[in-house]
Amino acid sequence: MKSGEEMEKKIKVAVVGYGNVGRAAVEAIKAASDLELAGVVRSAQKEVPSELVGVPVVQSLTELDSVDVAVLSLPTRMVGEYAVECLKQGINTVDSFDIHGEELLNHRDKLAEAARSSGAVAVISAGWDPGTDSMVRALMELMAPKGLTFTNFGPGMSLGHSVAAKAIPGVRDALSMTIPTGSGVHRRMVYVELAEGAEQDEIAAQIKADPYFSRDETHVYPVGSVEALKDVGHGVIIERKGTSGQAANQLLKWEMRINNPALTAQVMVSAARASVKQQPGAYTLLEIPLLDYFPGHPSELIKRLV
Amino acid sequence: MKSGEEMEKKIKVAVVGYGNVGRAAVEAIKAASDLELAGVVRSAQKEVPSELVGVPVVQSLTELDSVDVAVLSLPTRMVGEYAVECLKQGINTVDSFDIHGEELLNHRDKLAEAARSSGAVAVISAGWDPGTDSMVRALMELMAPKGLTFTNFGPGMSLGHSVAAKAIPGVRDALSMTIPTGSGVHRRMVYVELAEGAEQDEIAAQIKADPYFSRDETHVYPVGSVEALKDVGHGVIIERKGTSGQAANQLLKWEMRINNPALTAQVMVSAARASVKQQPGAYTLLEIPLLDYFPGHPSELIKRLV
Repeated sequence: MKSGEEMEKKIKVAVVGYGNVGRAAVEAIKAASDLELAGVVRSAQKEVPSELVGVPVVQSLTELDSVDVAVLSLPTRMVGEYAVECLKQGINTVDSFDIHGEELLNHRDKLAEAARSSGAVAVISAGWDPGTDSMVRALMELMAPKGLTFTNFGPGMSLGHSVAAKAIPGVRDALSMTIPTGSGVHRRMVYVELAEGAEQDEIAAQIKADPYFSRDETHVYPVGSVEALKDVGHGVIIERKGTSGQAANQLLKWEMRINNPALTAQVMVSAARASVKQQPGAYTLLEIPLLDYFPGHPSELIKRLV
Repeated sequence: MKSGEEMEKKIKVAVVGYGNVGRAAVEAIKAASDLELAGVVRSAQKEVPSELVGVPVVQSLTELDSVDVAVLSLPTRMVGEYAVECLKQGINTVDSFDIHGEELLNHRDKLAEAARSSGAVAVISAGWDPGTDSMVRALMELMAPKGLTFTNFGPGMSLGHSVAAKAIPGVRDALSMTIPTGSGVHRRMVYVELAEGAEQDEIAAQIKADPYFSRDETHVYPVGSVEALKDVGHGVIIERKGTSGQAANQLLKWEMRINNPALTAQVMVSAARASVKQQPGAYTLLEIPLLDYFPGHPSELIKRLV
């Protein structure tokens, strides 16, 4: 006999893209009793890995039946167009679009329009920064409206900086570690595999002159193998010293040490659940009540979580 | 010439009750450019303190004109009835009802009914625990759904425990400090002024046998003056070790060191602002999107906070 919860209709979630985050999204969906993995969309026909045996693996989302939400674990630059296509088909989307500010707003506007015209919901920038870090910063600011917040990333690998370093001629492979030095200031530790004949000092100078690195203290080290240094651990410390009313020196601090793709994927999957509870439109994580990210009855959740 | 923001209609907020939290609520309202202090309600006619000169100080909320929201800085046991009266008049309420679980749910149901019948909004349990701590715990759980969260309070004074100790015959005054010893376990350090002829050992035994103290490690110390020990500083450390998908050992931590009444009041005042953006009904902080606690245009907030 099935329990009431098991008999409730599960939310069908598809994962689009199968890199580190896509793989972790599949794990997070499988671990959630109220979600069902509708399938995985991969652009290229590849050998199906053992963990996907029995899971529909397709090249286009349209090949899957009755998908409620698509978790788009795609590069930020590809996400907008793909999301609009999903939304037009009435499928909710979740992405981890990771550029802050004006571009994020434009992305939200574009998806909101597509979502509203078909009655679907888009949750955008559902990673950890932007994402849950944004929620922490907002929470701190509502508690102490005047003051300063510092976000200190790392230690952890920065994909953007690693790609920028690797793009420099003479660099075969590169890994850029973000090291927090406090007050939101970061040091860049760049480990490079040099191509034959490449001059170490010249490469270092070029990396330090690159716009990705020029404003930060940057150190460049040649290594035998970049692959041997890879680790998906990351972290952040967010600190605010602010004032509540007239009471100064309110000290607030958030710290986490996490598996980066696993956290990103989990936040996206929690947001996928929240998406089915929203009115048509596009939402950042700050626009969704915290309770909506959870399965179960509101009363039970309030009793347990509040 | 006034700026656009200054010309917008301000939200009129009344403060009911003028203890530590009420005083801090007045300060938080005065510090917010989008809020206006409608007045202060005090049950007894007392001398008006200097900071309230020019502010309407009345004995009943009905004496104040066009109040949008009433911040109820009253003891938890008095809040329910008072809130229902406000809501029936169409005035939104914010309280810091501080009993978790079933009682909190009942309080929410009672206020929801009154609120819906008159088109008003109640925000309940808008302090720091329940309140912003609940938001932190929910945030942690959506990031790492499986695992354990520990809430470690203090060091800080516990009002409930202090009152319980003071109620014991032979105790003239008492202050109970909550000391965190990790894993959500707490030590109680109780400082007492003894009445003449009171036996120190007997008083200590009675305090330790009281239901407020009997489950915790409790130490009792006689002091010359309890008043000299009073300090409204408090704090908490909330820790979760959990799993995102299949990635274990996700380490999440929140720590704060704060002025207790000032934080409670600021959270209530931020919730007062959020109340005017909700549909009629009763809400815990987990049921309101984070963005609603802030003044200003959503696009500008998303650009700045996300």
